[in-house]
Amino acid sequence: MAASPHREMWEKLNLDIEAHDGLLEVLGKFYGDIYLSQEGRLGGMEYLDFVLSEVHGLRIREIQDARAAGKKVIGSFCVFVPEELTLAANAIQVGLCAGADAGKEEAEKLVPRNTCALIKSFIGFKLARICPYTESCDLIIGETTCDGKKKAYEAFGELVPMHVMEVPQQKNACDRTLWKSEILRYKDRLEALTGNTITAENLKKGIRIINDRRRALQRLNALRAAVPAPISGRDVLLINQVSFYDDPIRFTESIGKLCDQLEERIQKKEGIVPESTPRLMLSGCPMAVPNWKLPYIVEGSGAVVVGEESCIGTRNTRDLVDESGQTVEEMIDAICDRYMKIDCACFTPNTERLENIADMAKELKADGVIHYALMFCQPYAHEAFKVEKALREADIPMLSIETDYSMEDAEQLKTRVEAFVEMVS
Amino acid sequence: MAASPHREMWEKLNLDIEAHDGLLEVLGKFYGDIYLSQEGRLGGMEYLDFVLSEVHGLRIREIQDARAAGKKVIGSFCVFVPEELTLAANAIQVGLCAGADAGKEEAEKLVPRNTCALIKSFIGFKLARICPYTESCDLIIGETTCDGKKKAYEAFGELVPMHVMEVPQQKNACDRTLWKSEILRYKDRLEALTGNTITAENLKKGIRIINDRRRALQRLNALRAAVPAPISGRDVLLINQVSFYDDPIRFTESIGKLCDQLEERIQKKEGIVPESTPRLMLSGCPMAVPNWKLPYIVEGSGAVVVGEESCIGTRNTRDLVDESGQTVEEMIDAICDRYMKIDCACFTPNTERLENIADMAKELKADGVIHYALMFCQPYAHEAFKVEKALREADIPMLSIETDYSMEDAEQLKTRVEAFVEMVS
Repeated sequence: MAASPHREMWEKLNLDIEAHDGLLEVLGKFYGDIYLSQEGRLGGMEYLDFVLSEVHGLRIREIQDARAAGKKVIGSFCVFVPEELTLAANAIQVGLCAGADAGKEEAEKLVPRNTCALIKSFIGFKLARICPYTESCDLIIGETTCDGKKKAYEAFGELVPMHVMEVPQQKNACDRTLWKSEILRYKDRLEALTGNTITAENLKKGIRIINDRRRALQRLNALRAAVPAPISGRDVLLINQVSFYDDPIRFTESIGKLCDQLEERIQKKEGIVPESTPRLMLSGCPMAVPNWKLPYIVEGSGAVVVGEESCIGTRNTRDLVDESGQTVEEMIDAICDRYMKIDCACFTPNTERLENIADMAKELKADGVIHYALMFCQPYAHEAFKVEKALREADIPMLSIETDYSMEDAEQLKTRVEAFVEMVS
Repeated sequence: MAASPHREMWEKLNLDIEAHDGLLEVLGKFYGDIYLSQEGRLGGMEYLDFVLSEVHGLRIREIQDARAAGKKVIGSFCVFVPEELTLAANAIQVGLCAGADAGKEEAEKLVPRNTCALIKSFIGFKLARICPYTESCDLIIGETTCDGKKKAYEAFGELVPMHVMEVPQQKNACDRTLWKSEILRYKDRLEALTGNTITAENLKKGIRIINDRRRALQRLNALRAAVPAPISGRDVLLINQVSFYDDPIRFTESIGKLCDQLEERIQKKEGIVPESTPRLMLSGCPMAVPNWKLPYIVEGSGAVVVGEESCIGTRNTRDLVDESGQTVEEMIDAICDRYMKIDCACFTPNTERLENIADMAKELKADGVIHYALMFCQPYAHEAFKVEKALREADIPMLSIETDYSMEDAEQLKTRVEAFVEMVS
């Protein structure tokens, strides 16, 4: 492996160079096997291939250049952190590494073994010093969406600068009041960190940029309803994953071009797979880069994934912020209302999610749904029972899977997925 | 086994008589082995023995008689449900069965296998129809203290009449506002259910009754600081457990008499164990009846338990409601403030708990602390790491245990506990 041109930058970020080289090598091999091996991909996917190949390189360089010019960097692990405000304060928001086993043994000295892989991963990446995003952050925003993260942030907060937002657990008037005060607390924190004041003008712009990104992804999701499926599920997952890392304006433009190509393909009735390919939707926990395990297994089992009902998927793009607000107060209210619509399993009850899943499965003409819960993720593991019931009532078959980031169960998963694909065919 | 005089009542409650007989038989045997076998117990413990022997009998009869006279019965699983209000509305509040493996296989059809034993237990008891408390409830109050319960109540709520109170996750001003509105929502619900209005007069009385019970238990806890220990940990755990079932006024009187006896014993420098016996404190998850496994193992390993830092222990009795309020509004505020002091692991951060544990261990002259987390209880499993660190800084040894309700690991636990007892001796 030739020395990377980014090595000096990584050293400055205090990465463990050797371990980080190892990570990139594995990531590259994985990407080649899972992504580049696909046939008939759209030209527009080259943008994604490039972004991913430089996700620890050029994008980090951009971020470092921005920091040198005075910008602040905010890290997050959750779609509840309102990026509209982050942009309004002229800061950059990025997702942090949480999708691969890294530093697991060390992480288990800080959090219980019965903690989901995503949480152990972000702690492990920090302890192993191999996430250039985590190391680039001026502030990391936690939230109280599950017990695992809520309590893990207490340990994580001893390693990084943190601010925790409280996400309410019901959707009554008092919950909206609490959430609004948490948004205002985040606004104060951002203004103090950046030295910039959030004004009606820059907040309006922030809302527009993030809404545009959501609209691009909504368009992509609508195009997937075409038969035959015009794009693989792996590729759309990658697009959703990249949306947390790349510059939002550049990302939106690139996805727009990709969607243009998709439309051409659909007009020609071309697909990435034959028309008869069983169409499956994934639903549940987020899949962070490079957690491509399940889509790879599903699409290697003769099916195509046509939807991701998850935070790295439609949960993050379904709802827009109302753009009619003119004052900061009105826009904060619109942001508050938009985020209160999120159908996260942290809410009780969370019946909207059941309706959204059934609607989405029908719109995407899915033949079945695979519910995906990370092992020890209690909120989504509980909801799996309710989703199965709701889908049964809608006559949509469901397979419930609980797994983590290891490849130990890959063969067993493949067997179960293949049987499910055969059943829905 | 002779037919019980309560059989007809249990049939009316739609209990599964055969399964319930089996439960009582096991409970009786357990109680004989763990409690009645103890030597040198105080005469005052006869009250507890009687209450426990009639916990499914005479106490249920009392409750049924009260219901026949128009009283309502509220069930709960958590110390956040404000019993002051329940009493003010002339209702009865009881804890529900959650301390033994019952109906586990059936429960696992409604909640994930990776759910703590306490949650599976309350669902299992309901499905198996063997908890006369659950069957006597007009309303069961859930809360959002952990993901496991929060989501399990959604399934449980399809089996019983439920009302869920949202407990906040931080202790800022907006959290107190949310909690106050939840208390007011509970008040409304109680008034609607009972047809009784909560007035300054009856609320003042409710606060007094519950504070008196807390004062009796505070006195008991203070007396345990004596060397040699005047009462076994098992017995104090039982007292705390019974406090959730028995009539609060009768309970307070009985514990007062028991404390008088304890004082006499202490004056004579008599103990339940020799002065040299290692003194251990338990800390962590609640132990519901008949979950006596760990105290029994600890006290069978040559140590004596001198404190229970748990919800069925000091977490429920440490703080009193301020009694100076004269209006309903003032009293609601006082209740709100008191409950916001609870150092539950649902809060982030929850540093008060660390201070409370260290203070308590010192006051009780504990030689060590055993931290007890139910398997899959994420909040307490996470805090175990922090408690260990805080105790290390206070030079107090700690043993961290994770277990469930089965006896499969009893021998292994005994080995670990014995080694710990030897270390602190």
